Amino acid sequence: MIQAGIFGATSYTGLELISLLDAHPQAGIAFAASNSMAGKTLSDSFPKKPPLPLIPPQEADLEQADLVFLCLPHGEAAAAAIKALEAGCKVIDLSADFRLTDAAVYKQWYGKDHPKPELLANACYGLTETARETLPGCSLVANPGCYPTSVLLALYPLVKAGLLHGRLIVDSKSGVSGAGRKPKESTHFVTVDGNFSPYSIGRAHRHLPEMEQVLQGWGSKQTGMLFSPHLLPVSRGILSTIYAPLSNDTQLDDVYDLYRTTYDNEPFIQLLAPEATATLAHVVHTNMCTIGMTLADNTLILTSALDNLLKGASGQAVQNMNMIYGWEETSGLIKTGGDHASY
Amino acid sequence: MIQAGIFGATSYTGLELISLLDAHPQAGIAFAASNSMAGKTLSDSFPKKPPLPLIPPQEADLEQADLVFLCLPHGEAAAAAIKALEAGCKVIDLSADFRLTDAAVYKQWYGKDHPKPELLANACYGLTETARETLPGCSLVANPGCYPTSVLLALYPLVKAGLLHGRLIVDSKSGVSGAGRKPKESTHFVTVDGNFSPYSIGRAHRHLPEMEQVLQGWGSKQTGMLFSPHLLPVSRGILSTIYAPLSNDTQLDDVYDLYRTTYDNEPFIQLLAPEATATLAHVVHTNMCTIGMTLADNTLILTSALDNLLKGASGQAVQNMNMIYGWEETSGLIKTGGDHASY
Amino acid sequence: MIQAGIFGATSYTGLELISLLDAHPQAGIAFAASNSMAGKTLSDSFPKKPPLPLIPPQEADLEQADLVFLCLPHGEAAAAAIKALEAGCKVIDLSADFRLTDAAVYKQWYGKDHPKPELLANACYGLTETARETLPGCSLVANPGCYPTSVLLALYPLVKAGLLHGRLIVDSKSGVSGAGRKPKESTHFVTVDGNFSPYSIGRAHRHLPEMEQVLQGWGSKQTGMLFSPHLLPVSRGILSTIYAPLSNDTQLDDVYDLYRTTYDNEPFIQLLAPEATATLAHVVHTNMCTIGMTLADNTLILTSALDNLLKGASGQAVQNMNMIYGWEETSGLIKTGGDHASY
Amino acid sequence: MIQAGIFGATSYTGLELISLLDAHPQAGIAFAASNSMAGKTLSDSFPKKPPLPLIPPQEADLEQADLVFLCLPHGEAAAAAIKALEAGCKVIDLSADFRLTDAAVYKQWYGKDHPKPELLANACYGLTETARETLPGCSLVANPGCYPTSVLLALYPLVKAGLLHGRLIVDSKSGVSGAGRKPKESTHFVTVDGNFSPYSIGRAHRHLPEMEQVLQGWGSKQTGMLFSPHLLPVSRGILSTIYAPLSNDTQLDDVYDLYRTTYDNEPFIQLLAPEATATLAHVVHTNMCTIGMTLADNTLILTSALDNLLKGASGQAVQNMNMIYGWEETSGLIKTGGDHASY
Repeated sequence: MIQAGIFGATSYTGLELISLLDAHPQAGIAFAASNSMAGKTLSDSFPKKPPLPLIPPQEADLEQADLVFLCLPHGEAAAAAIKALEAGCKVIDLSADFRLTDAAVYKQWYGKDHPKPELLANACYGLTETARETLPGCSLVANPGCYPTSVLLALYPLVKAGLLHGRLIVDSKSGVSGAGRKPKESTHFVTVDGNFSPYSIGRAHRHLPEMEQVLQGWGSKQTGMLFSPHLLPVSRGILSTIYAPLSNDTQLDDVYDLYRTTYDNEPFIQLLAPEATATLAHVVHTNMCTIGMTLADNTLILTSALDNLLKGASGQAVQNMNMIYGWEETSGLIKTGGDHASY
Repeated sequence: MIQAGIFGATSYTGLELISLLDAHPQAGIAFAASNSMAGKTLSDSFPKKPPLPLIPPQEADLEQADLVFLCLPHGEAAAAAIKALEAGCKVIDLSADFRLTDAAVYKQWYGKDHPKPELLANACYGLTETARETLPGCSLVANPGCYPTSVLLALYPLVKAGLLHGRLIVDSKSGVSGAGRKPKESTHFVTVDGNFSPYSIGRAHRHLPEMEQVLQGWGSKQTGMLFSPHLLPVSRGILSTIYAPLSNDTQLDDVYDLYRTTYDNEPFIQLLAPEATATLAHVVHTNMCTIGMTLADNTLILTSALDNLLKGASGQAVQNMNMIYGWEETSGLIKTGGDHASY
Repeated sequence: MIQAGIFGATSYTGLELISLLDAHPQAGIAFAASNSMAGKTLSDSFPKKPPLPLIPPQEADLEQADLVFLCLPHGEAAAAAIKALEAGCKVIDLSADFRLTDAAVYKQWYGKDHPKPELLANACYGLTETARETLPGCSLVANPGCYPTSVLLALYPLVKAGLLHGRLIVDSKSGVSGAGRKPKESTHFVTVDGNFSPYSIGRAHRHLPEMEQVLQGWGSKQTGMLFSPHLLPVSRGILSTIYAPLSNDTQLDDVYDLYRTTYDNEPFIQLLAPEATATLAHVVHTNMCTIGMTLADNTLILTSALDNLLKGASGQAVQNMNMIYGWEETSGLIKTGGDHASY
Repeated sequence: MIQAGIFGATSYTGLELISLLDAHPQAGIAFAASNSMAGKTLSDSFPKKPPLPLIPPQEADLEQADLVFLCLPHGEAAAAAIKALEAGCKVIDLSADFRLTDAAVYKQWYGKDHPKPELLANACYGLTETARETLPGCSLVANPGCYPTSVLLALYPLVKAGLLHGRLIVDSKSGVSGAGRKPKESTHFVTVDGNFSPYSIGRAHRHLPEMEQVLQGWGSKQTGMLFSPHLLPVSRGILSTIYAPLSNDTQLDDVYDLYRTTYDNEPFIQLLAPEATATLAHVVHTNMCTIGMTLADNTLILTSALDNLLKGASGQAVQNMNMIYGWEETSGLIKTGGDHASY
């Protein structure tokens, strides 16, 4: 049994993490820190959550924690990570602070110098299914972004096998919880209800360099990837529709076999039969990533769905914790859920 | 370990039940019967569900089942119950067929003779928290209606203490899954989205006689209860706002103490502090019934919320199964969930 | 052709008003004032709106306006009304500042002294259908609250005829635009989506004294009215379910005839056949108030629906302007709309 | 004043058309025919609609109509068109029956022989902004599909100018009303709410050959277009995100100028500033098509939004009627609306 501390406990990802840890057989909650709600009890504001005291971050006793989860804005997360590592804690950072390996790229996309560039080389990029060798025992995990998780898991077998022949186009759609709990005009119910809107399309979103870095690491030669996020009028879930050019003679069955070989034993990846498509109903409230594939005009169209707060954030963070400590990978995680939508 | 059979497995309540049984430590699934989808595998149509074969109801082998759950329309349920009881199975019926104790009232509200009136006296009305003495060992449980569960749990302490002084007005609101999975114009997305509509208001809904019968059984003298259901543009959840006249000198604190005494150890009832109000966000995806109370002009206004598919149907059915067999009452049931709405 | 100025132009009611005035044959827009967005052009932020310059309120040239609409918070509205009246403008105030005739009641419910109590006697309460004698030529109209409009129009014939025999219970449900455009946790999409929540129930909401005052003015003796508002997960619309006790011998047909007589020639009231119920789909995006009635246990259950931004605010404000100037009452107003929900 | 008859009056497009014609200054309604609801009055089932008698299609008196609108399934529409043309009526067909000019392509995609191939050459493809020369006086208009309208209007200037250099990828998202009023499991509220799902992606949707035919007619050499429709949890609206490869040296400003020149005087096209993106909130409840453009990696990313029932169906049909008769193009059509979403 280890004890985990949470910074940013009242963010959506922090709240989700608390539900997961509350039911986890091998991990307890050392503390739940929150700037905005310190002094309150969690269940007072969030009736479904356990009655944890919320403490100010500066009062967090790192001595009592074996591991900390950082559900903080970028910049703040790096500072907290440094302190936690110094105190001997392991760190799983859900922010973007340790995802990019190059401090110059970080500065370009996040507009400021990285607070601790020398740590970047130490961080393990926690796309769990692709990081089985680096995660065990790792002390600093950069938990992947929600969009990148949906896109990279869908592309991993293809890219590793060298089958991608050309520029990627990724058209992604996310629910509103991805925008965070802070009220903004763009997340007002009246703004979102009945609406659907693209944002930061092309080569403008911060998840783009994260994806390109990982793809390159897998040997991809593609450049100029286009990435178009859209805001869906739903609370949870991401669906990415990915257009991946193949060489002329590639057959769908061969690609499908490749994916089946790669993912057959993965507890959190559901590979659909060829031509079937992933939907949010496959994944919401679970830690699954569901992947479908269709071939048309030498282009593999992948549909990849996940719950942005679970497999896209806190669920994957717990999966990574399980890997760090060598526990059963599914420990404390949800594979199936109770919703009834049939497609 | 007992084996449970399910009739009506592809109804919303059947599907919910399968998710619960699939995770239940003491109960397995003997068979899943479905008229409309027999021959298919459950997970083909409902990707989050286990890969159970769906069999035609007439092929269900009752010898293999210790207990059957009936997720069938009224009328059909009674016929299936008779066969299952004869085969020695225990029966938990989620339909209305055994809720009314008087066959004449059944005929009046359901428009046909009851198929087996002599069984009505045997059935235990499974409003779990109020049926602790009759459930253990019971062979035929009439699982309460979704609206009645929300209303009766909110009124139980008040009525048993004789504090209700006058006619009840119940204004209830339900999500669309309460109307069943069969596509109808009234459940079409375009009809429901952005809409809100009353139906069967006054003394017209079939859940009215069910509630009046139970209230009378608890000693209530009230007559002429008004019950107004409304359809909410949400998938799951019921909220009932109940106007209960008290005598002039009743104090809110005393009523609150009465409820606390009654419900303090109940695992599935959350009593809110006086003046706080229940919402769907308290309960959706859990087996909880959350109750709030406010006093104004000698009227106790109760707000009572539950998930119509869990505490209002399949969750309560599992809770009743746990009671029949003397297991831990919370076995296989969800108390808290992952949603983030803060009120 | 008159010129109308708008204060609070970027509030939901202000925006709605601008759409109505933009299409009004007898009224032009003198200016659109906004504190938060002064200096911008309206269509830049709201792409469906006309390209009006937004000016700071203090720069509004009242000389150019014949009439001003106040879409301001209470308190601010009274101050603006005083200035506009002094400048010779007519005023239609959509806030609560001139609805209560008694400054003491205002202080009790709004927590501060009324800024100009001597004006209260001058204001005409603009529930249009009931104010045909006072509106023509009136210089200060207190536009009714959204909830009161739905409730009072449904009760007017009954109360005027002296048929109400007892205490009213009003269970109301409103869409989110009623809470205003300012982002708050309670209006965040993730908070509202899939949720339904009561608030300020019993005798706690500021619209309660407004309704009681008007009912009393119509001769009602009822006291202790209960009023329970709830927040619906829709953008627009209010539905009030009203429980009005009648004397024992009152027949539904007689009540219906009374309503038909009262409302038959009203362009913006749709009276449904007995037993039919009003829904949001009847009224959203129109200036209609739709009313249904059912009798049960000597209680008339009225369902009353309107669009909170049109008949409940800006539509009624334009209707009142039409009355002030003696124009066709329907001028510039929408009776029917394009939505397809069939109930 | 002409008289228009409507077949399929109770479909979503029929209902929308009736609202438009009801308010049209130059067109009256000769008859409203409906198979499923013949004998009823329209307003009984659809409370916001006018009280038109619904007649069986075979009783429609074509002598009384100058023009008929066909809101019928494909196949049925062609049969009705033949009869109407023989009776001397003009025909605007909202189905797919006269959109494809090649009967062999029709058979390939619609699975049956075209009922009257010799008429295909006579039909004018009614993408209004691109058909100004053929529409006046035309007797048979093939009203474009909803998806094609959003895609083709966005591509028209680019393709006509020969700037498209490569294969198109179109990722489209539609509201549920596009799937029709007939209740199906896929349009059940519980299936759609909180969900998002791709369907018929790649080269599988019937709107693909329609788009390729038109693009070819404009001189495009591209082949192998990919088209991926998705179902959005909203009632109305389509947003298409279009990836159009350009040659290396094309500048965004030049493309923008080209579009401005082409569309500057179009009443129903709103061209956004470069880098801005279209959303459903721009267009729902209006007849507008809003277009945004972004350039990245030599690819023009177009976002194109419209209301699928207005500009994507009945609104464009009325626009086409206006053109046939030489009336003001905007006659009876809505440019701006009352919703408040700000993006």
